[in-house]
Amino acid sequence: MRTGVWLVGARGSVAVTSIVGAAALRAGLTEPIGCVTEHPALRSARLPAYGDLAFGGHDIATTGLVKKAEALAAAGVVPARLVDTLHSELAAVDDDIRPLPHGATQAETAAAMASDIEDFRQRYRLERVVVVNVASTEAAPAPHPAHDRLDALREALAGPGAVLPPSALAAYAAFTAGCAFVDFTPSTGARLPALHELAVERGVPYGGHDGKTGETLLKAVLAPMFAMRNLQVRSWSGINLLGGGDGATLAEPAANAAKSASKQRVLKETLGYQPDGHTRIEFVPDIGDFKTAWDLITFAGFLGTPMRMEFTWHGCDSALAAPLVLDLARLAAAAHRAGRSGPLTELAFFFKDPLGDVDHSLAAQFAVLAEFTGTLG
Amino acid sequence: MRTGVWLVGARGSVAVTSIVGAAALRAGLTEPIGCVTEHPALRSARLPAYGDLAFGGHDIATTGLVKKAEALAAAGVVPARLVDTLHSELAAVDDDIRPLPHGATQAETAAAMASDIEDFRQRYRLERVVVVNVASTEAAPAPHPAHDRLDALREALAGPGAVLPPSALAAYAAFTAGCAFVDFTPSTGARLPALHELAVERGVPYGGHDGKTGETLLKAVLAPMFAMRNLQVRSWSGINLLGGGDGATLAEPAANAAKSASKQRVLKETLGYQPDGHTRIEFVPDIGDFKTAWDLITFAGFLGTPMRMEFTWHGCDSALAAPLVLDLARLAAAAHRAGRSGPLTELAFFFKDPLGDVDHSLAAQFAVLAEFTGTLG
Amino acid sequence: MRTGVWLVGARGSVAVTSIVGAAALRAGLTEPIGCVTEHPALRSARLPAYGDLAFGGHDIATTGLVKKAEALAAAGVVPARLVDTLHSELAAVDDDIRPLPHGATQAETAAAMASDIEDFRQRYRLERVVVVNVASTEAAPAPHPAHDRLDALREALAGPGAVLPPSALAAYAAFTAGCAFVDFTPSTGARLPALHELAVERGVPYGGHDGKTGETLLKAVLAPMFAMRNLQVRSWSGINLLGGGDGATLAEPAANAAKSASKQRVLKETLGYQPDGHTRIEFVPDIGDFKTAWDLITFAGFLGTPMRMEFTWHGCDSALAAPLVLDLARLAAAAHRAGRSGPLTELAFFFKDPLGDVDHSLAAQFAVLAEFTGTLG
Amino acid sequence: MRTGVWLVGARGSVAVTSIVGAAALRAGLTEPIGCVTEHPALRSARLPAYGDLAFGGHDIATTGLVKKAEALAAAGVVPARLVDTLHSELAAVDDDIRPLPHGATQAETAAAMASDIEDFRQRYRLERVVVVNVASTEAAPAPHPAHDRLDALREALAGPGAVLPPSALAAYAAFTAGCAFVDFTPSTGARLPALHELAVERGVPYGGHDGKTGETLLKAVLAPMFAMRNLQVRSWSGINLLGGGDGATLAEPAANAAKSASKQRVLKETLGYQPDGHTRIEFVPDIGDFKTAWDLITFAGFLGTPMRMEFTWHGCDSALAAPLVLDLARLAAAAHRAGRSGPLTELAFFFKDPLGDVDHSLAAQFAVLAEFTGTLG
Repeated sequence: MRTGVWLVGARGSVAVTSIVGAAALRAGLTEPIGCVTEHPALRSARLPAYGDLAFGGHDIATTGLVKKAEALAAAGVVPARLVDTLHSELAAVDDDIRPLPHGATQAETAAAMASDIEDFRQRYRLERVVVVNVASTEAAPAPHPAHDRLDALREALAGPGAVLPPSALAAYAAFTAGCAFVDFTPSTGARLPALHELAVERGVPYGGHDGKTGETLLKAVLAPMFAMRNLQVRSWSGINLLGGGDGATLAEPAANAAKSASKQRVLKETLGYQPDGHTRIEFVPDIGDFKTAWDLITFAGFLGTPMRMEFTWHGCDSALAAPLVLDLARLAAAAHRAGRSGPLTELAFFFKDPLGDVDHSLAAQFAVLAEFTGTLG
Repeated sequence: MRTGVWLVGARGSVAVTSIVGAAALRAGLTEPIGCVTEHPALRSARLPAYGDLAFGGHDIATTGLVKKAEALAAAGVVPARLVDTLHSELAAVDDDIRPLPHGATQAETAAAMASDIEDFRQRYRLERVVVVNVASTEAAPAPHPAHDRLDALREALAGPGAVLPPSALAAYAAFTAGCAFVDFTPSTGARLPALHELAVERGVPYGGHDGKTGETLLKAVLAPMFAMRNLQVRSWSGINLLGGGDGATLAEPAANAAKSASKQRVLKETLGYQPDGHTRIEFVPDIGDFKTAWDLITFAGFLGTPMRMEFTWHGCDSALAAPLVLDLARLAAAAHRAGRSGPLTELAFFFKDPLGDVDHSLAAQFAVLAEFTGTLG
Repeated sequence: MRTGVWLVGARGSVAVTSIVGAAALRAGLTEPIGCVTEHPALRSARLPAYGDLAFGGHDIATTGLVKKAEALAAAGVVPARLVDTLHSELAAVDDDIRPLPHGATQAETAAAMASDIEDFRQRYRLERVVVVNVASTEAAPAPHPAHDRLDALREALAGPGAVLPPSALAAYAAFTAGCAFVDFTPSTGARLPALHELAVERGVPYGGHDGKTGETLLKAVLAPMFAMRNLQVRSWSGINLLGGGDGATLAEPAANAAKSASKQRVLKETLGYQPDGHTRIEFVPDIGDFKTAWDLITFAGFLGTPMRMEFTWHGCDSALAAPLVLDLARLAAAAHRAGRSGPLTELAFFFKDPLGDVDHSLAAQFAVLAEFTGTLG
Repeated sequence: MRTGVWLVGARGSVAVTSIVGAAALRAGLTEPIGCVTEHPALRSARLPAYGDLAFGGHDIATTGLVKKAEALAAAGVVPARLVDTLHSELAAVDDDIRPLPHGATQAETAAAMASDIEDFRQRYRLERVVVVNVASTEAAPAPHPAHDRLDALREALAGPGAVLPPSALAAYAAFTAGCAFVDFTPSTGARLPALHELAVERGVPYGGHDGKTGETLLKAVLAPMFAMRNLQVRSWSGINLLGGGDGATLAEPAANAAKSASKQRVLKETLGYQPDGHTRIEFVPDIGDFKTAWDLITFAGFLGTPMRMEFTWHGCDSALAAPLVLDLARLAAAAHRAGRSGPLTELAFFFKDPLGDVDHSLAAQFAVLAEFTGTLG
């Protein structure tokens, strides 16, 4: 039985890399490197096979998926020969990408979005569809009283004005269409009491937030190392240089502050105290899709002896994110089938800013994920 | 009840830093930073208190402990004011450091060593003594048939010639004296079948090898990170620049090769394959006691996209090792009291080259250690 | 004949390190490491000897110089034994540090400052005095019409209100007292047409701005390297982590922007184009007086092949600046004696933001400096 | 008038990148990035134009130039589209690459080599030919008495056995054919008194040794920086990780030692003393043609304060070397035409191990080169 993956932001770098990769896996042209669900501790027949995933989505961008894939190939993100070979498969997926609807009210917009998803499900006779948000990061929305209760929200959406930010409206539409929803971005997504109420009402699960692709991944193993060794982290400072799509957005002071706070959160929660230092994000167009992050950690050892470490991470965010998008789609689909609804806190391994009050150690998160995968059967 | 810590190499950097630190802890002049047994998950009333540890040892060096402590203070390894304040305590410990005996046969030497330890135990009415080897790294010894059986070993030791390398003779002496033995170095120590037989016969536990102080500590969290994320490590290369005591020894081609192999072992066992690359050790006198390690890791992500990370670790080996020596003495003493004998494989967290067939992930090793500590009561 | 060095900000880190160093040099307790005027190409009998320098200055801080020197010793900036040994010399200098005067008008304040300098000159029968500004960096001042002409400036200073920022008032006082003036900071100093007029009228030379102590020093050799090799620098981004005195000031967004622009200027002027990227300054208290700067440079080689380099600089700003302060005092005194007045553009080697339209290559600047030194005799 | 460039090792990475680049420049498909002779200070109408260079050479490899170019494109060294577009030009050059002759004596081999070069010159009516050695690095040859005098050398070459290593035999053949010779490698080349005699006899110039492509380029600007600032370099240690053609050869202990010594020479000669430390070369196949060099420099500032810097250089050796090969061919041709014979010490800018007793500062070498270029007209 086939499973749909409906990508919000389907013509962006992460989405297109996911789609190219899934097509390459189906065609046996690549290995599932970077796919966590292929780790021996997680592999499970309950997860839909790569070959059984069908892709569609919404996007406001009109540049076609093939063109975007060619641009990614030129930037070294995906191999050019794959894009050539998979040309017709990619063009076919592009036909299932719909412009983002604009209704007179947000209620109408959400209904049109849900209808696009439902059409997709029926067209390919899909057992179920998982909606994954991989659109650009939004600014934090203003609070609104209708965010707290589902009935108030329904009423407000029927009126004029923007009650929900786009990511939350996407979650609303997904739940309305009976789909699981995963937010791979730092945006609001399903993180509102009214949306939680809707997810539970519709019996669908949701997951998020903010895929752990680079520097935070390292923090999630290094901070526990310092904690386990009882070394005292005095400062942890860093800078992220990035030039791709999200770079310009994230380097805005406001987004920067939000993102930076989320990046330092793991330290406080792992170490039990907040070291000095910040993480800056800087937009450098020439860097392109390969992000360079540098961190300096100063720490005290026995008798207060000062020591330090630094690291440089030079990774391709889209290539790190794409296999996780496939993992999350497979896991959310299996969880939905297994009858789970509400927040999937067991997916914390994947996220910088996970749902729920969870352990921030990567090893602990992996153990939770492995156990969760075992319960899906 | 007091516990003795008998250090083989008692006037070396690691030993002296341990002794200064224990005295400072006893006097309330410092916090137990870097002491793993102070982590909330490990803290236990079954472990001897820092204030209940008494120090003595063997060394071929004749420069006094106070002088060595002053040299470490000048090098920034320990605070100068602590050495001043603790002057008389350190001088008192120095009185309990004995020159390494030289008998006509190794059997005689071992008997004299055991007798020194026994004298120490009685002099301070110690409940038990743990012997910890922190002497310089030896070259790998030639194999000898007497290494395999205790009766053959006893016979060979009574004859002329060197049957056991110094670290193994120290283990023999420790076991003979009914003491637990821990090898903090890469040397042979208790790793011979005949010595295992002796430890079991005498009902004493032993642990080792090669304290995980710097680069390997990082490997023990970074390699599992790549494994958990199913990323493909293509190469892992590094260089260690060090100038302190062990530097000249370790940079010898033979020792270098042995050490380097031990450093790469964790990769093979964690990843399931051996990436390209080596770890070099280089002696640079100006670096002093602060070791600088640099590693470059190249890895492939989704669709084979090449990525890389590098890190620099600038740590003081003695200050990283010393609290672990205290941890190991406390844990080995508690294990001995709890009736354990033979290899303490649960101590893998502390070692580059741990005893037994154990998981190399730091997080997994920590969990094993925490459980072990819980069973000691 | 003795020469005075009057330091504005005489109890700050740079000033105190300079004073400790000069006293140590006089006493033969150290070598002139980091003193450029000791380079064989620059050494000259026309420069006042270290032993002939007398120190005094202004400061608003009331914590004594000895106490500050002890704090610097604790931070590892100067050796503790030197501070102990030189205790009485340092206390004697502290007696020549005056509180910054506060007159009813800026004219009165400047007159009181000049009078303090003149008293100092007479008290020690100094041949001449060089005033060096090493006070904290100021915010950029608002433009004022009186900045452009000396007569207008004199009139405005006699009225109420602050016409000149503190650094410019110090230059005004120095010139009034017939002294050469050097600004080691990014502040305004003598960089106003009216002050230039005054310097020429009084026949005194001046120099500046912003001592080249760390990252910009590297830029001044690396940018010419890329230029000479005709490689195309695509981006140059960096971050400076610093925790000492100036850290908090410089990390303010406004000061940060000004400083960052000055740091990138060298690139534009050396390469002939402005690469992508910025330099950020970040205040991290735990870093203390040792600044860590990290830079990433991406560049294109033949056929556009993308390459990259990164560097980390871990330097002590005060220890890098102090010998330059001595160099500048010696050079400015000799220039003054040689009859030079107005801007000393030949001192560009020392500055991030040098006076005049000069070559930014360190090697070119060194050649100019060596020639200049040769002309002083 | 056209100029020939005869490459010894014409199917190696450096040679092929040079040939692709020259063809791309001729076709107007690229800019001369990395070509030093395009720097405004060096540009000269006396240098043969890129469009006037004709390529040929010797190689023992039989894999065609086009295939090698495609492999370089796959490795990211040259753009794939260029190789496609220039396919026929590259194939035409391949027709001018001759197998390395093997005569019964070295005299016969050299004569056959000279004859190949002469044929090439006549076939394309070239004004002159420059021979450039870009073959793999050789082991240092055993000394031979015939190396010292030309008549003895001629006699010895006519006998059996290998008197000259391949690079020196290539120089002998070049001089015999009346061609200028440049050695871009660390091999012997023309560095024998007998060969110098021959060059002078034939009135041809020669240059070398060992193109300054990466880490040594940085040393040539950083070491002078420390010297100019009178900072005391305490240690300079490094490691070069490389996986391309020369990697396996250079990582051999003997070659490694030779190369490492050459890399440290610049320090001694620039600083006036030899700091601690070594440079290691390590072969890591996965690194491919992009070399990663990491260096740690520890230095003392004022009052002995210890500081440090480190850098990572991630460059493509072939793409860095190729434009220099074109530069050297142009400069050697112009020098030959201008009547120069014997060693071209003015080319030190290009080499790690330059001919003659020259300044090792890159800026000084650039000034010498610019002056030299000016004299060619």
